[in-house]
Amino acid sequence: MQGIRALVFDVFGTLVDWRGSIAREARLVLEPLGLRDLDWPGFADAWRGEYQGAMDAVRSGRLPFAKLDALHRRNLDLVLERLGLAARVDEASRQRLNLAWHRLDAWPEVGAALRLLRPHYLLAPCSNGNISLMVDLARRNDWHWDAILGAEIARDYKPKPGVYQAAAAAFDLAPQQVLMVAAHSSDLAAARAAGLRCAFVARPDEAGPGRGESQPATEVDLAAADLQALAVALAR
Amino acid sequence: MQGIRALVFDVFGTLVDWRGSIAREARLVLEPLGLRDLDWPGFADAWRGEYQGAMDAVRSGRLPFAKLDALHRRNLDLVLERLGLAARVDEASRQRLNLAWHRLDAWPEVGAALRLLRPHYLLAPCSNGNISLMVDLARRNDWHWDAILGAEIARDYKPKPGVYQAAAAAFDLAPQQVLMVAAHSSDLAAARAAGLRCAFVARPDEAGPGRGESQPATEVDLAAADLQALAVALAR
Repeated sequence: MQGIRALVFDVFGTLVDWRGSIAREARLVLEPLGLRDLDWPGFADAWRGEYQGAMDAVRSGRLPFAKLDALHRRNLDLVLERLGLAARVDEASRQRLNLAWHRLDAWPEVGAALRLLRPHYLLAPCSNGNISLMVDLARRNDWHWDAILGAEIARDYKPKPGVYQAAAAAFDLAPQQVLMVAAHSSDLAAARAAGLRCAFVARPDEAGPGRGESQPATEVDLAAADLQALAVALAR
Repeated sequence: MQGIRALVFDVFGTLVDWRGSIAREARLVLEPLGLRDLDWPGFADAWRGEYQGAMDAVRSGRLPFAKLDALHRRNLDLVLERLGLAARVDEASRQRLNLAWHRLDAWPEVGAALRLLRPHYLLAPCSNGNISLMVDLARRNDWHWDAILGAEIARDYKPKPGVYQAAAAAFDLAPQQVLMVAAHSSDLAAARAAGLRCAFVARPDEAGPGRGESQPATEVDLAAADLQALAVALAR
């Protein structure tokens, strides 16, 4: 991987377990309201299921840029309505639940792998999550980023090419000096089309057992079983 | 200082000794070209002297936003011309010298003070320096920021109010939850007018002996002799 100066990372699914964390947080907020026996991982899936549609409105220019927190809130309201729970979840609880995305836990090997990479490369998230969300995840999981890059800097959402290119430009690097790391082939294919190099990390159980990618479905420069394996390969 | 959640920092002069560092770096680049016996601190002053004028073109809307690196380069060319050195400094040397602003050293107490503050507050630069410049200074001086905020995020230059407000907004905070820390009364007055709270740090010798502010010339919420004193007062 000659010439790589910076690594930029997808976060949801690649670095953090959004499904397990959202299931836990949803239960913590909603059970005290009397909502018991909900399928909590299913609730996480339903909420996440609205993710791409909300961003499409921004990507297409139909809506001006809004932070992902705002899109998550719109999606939460939709999902509560669809599940027939709208009348049972008050505004304060919705606000608290919406910030569950700021309380996601990293996959187990991520912290050590980032520490291994840091002496060798500039490191930043290149996520669709907003800056404050990324800041909270970094504090929670003890990550040390050089900068918070991604959607909020670019005022647009991945997989639009400008988001990847803005991350490289913020570091004063050419796209080919930046390696995009993600567990999603679609993200990597878009990064590659934008000029970046790309590395795949397997998260075969991201959205539940067997519901994640174990192999890349697009051309990549590197593929690894987890972030530690990637870090060992790159930190040589 | 109740209700403060984040501290944002001016950098040039407040956290780093731009004059001593630029004098050293200019000598390192220019002496090998045969430029001896230059007044190196005077060279730093001349370069820094073009700083506000270059940004005014952006602030007034006459020029679109450009990274401070680009403005520094324009200013360097101006200063070399004025000193009659233009023919003696080649393009590669100018590029190397321009990045001297990425190689500034912190005032002695800054690293320890930031480490003391970090468990208590979100921390970010709110500088006119671009993201890559701030990233390089953080690496060089071993600082751990939560995010790189400031001019490049806001696409405008301090003391425009939007730069301070964009820093607060990136953290999802109201302006009054953010404390701007600077050694310059003009910066603090502008931050205060934009709704932030403000703390003065004395750098009485910033631009040479006695050529810096030892007392704030504007109303501030807190004033300290150096960053360590400020950190001790705030980390209680």
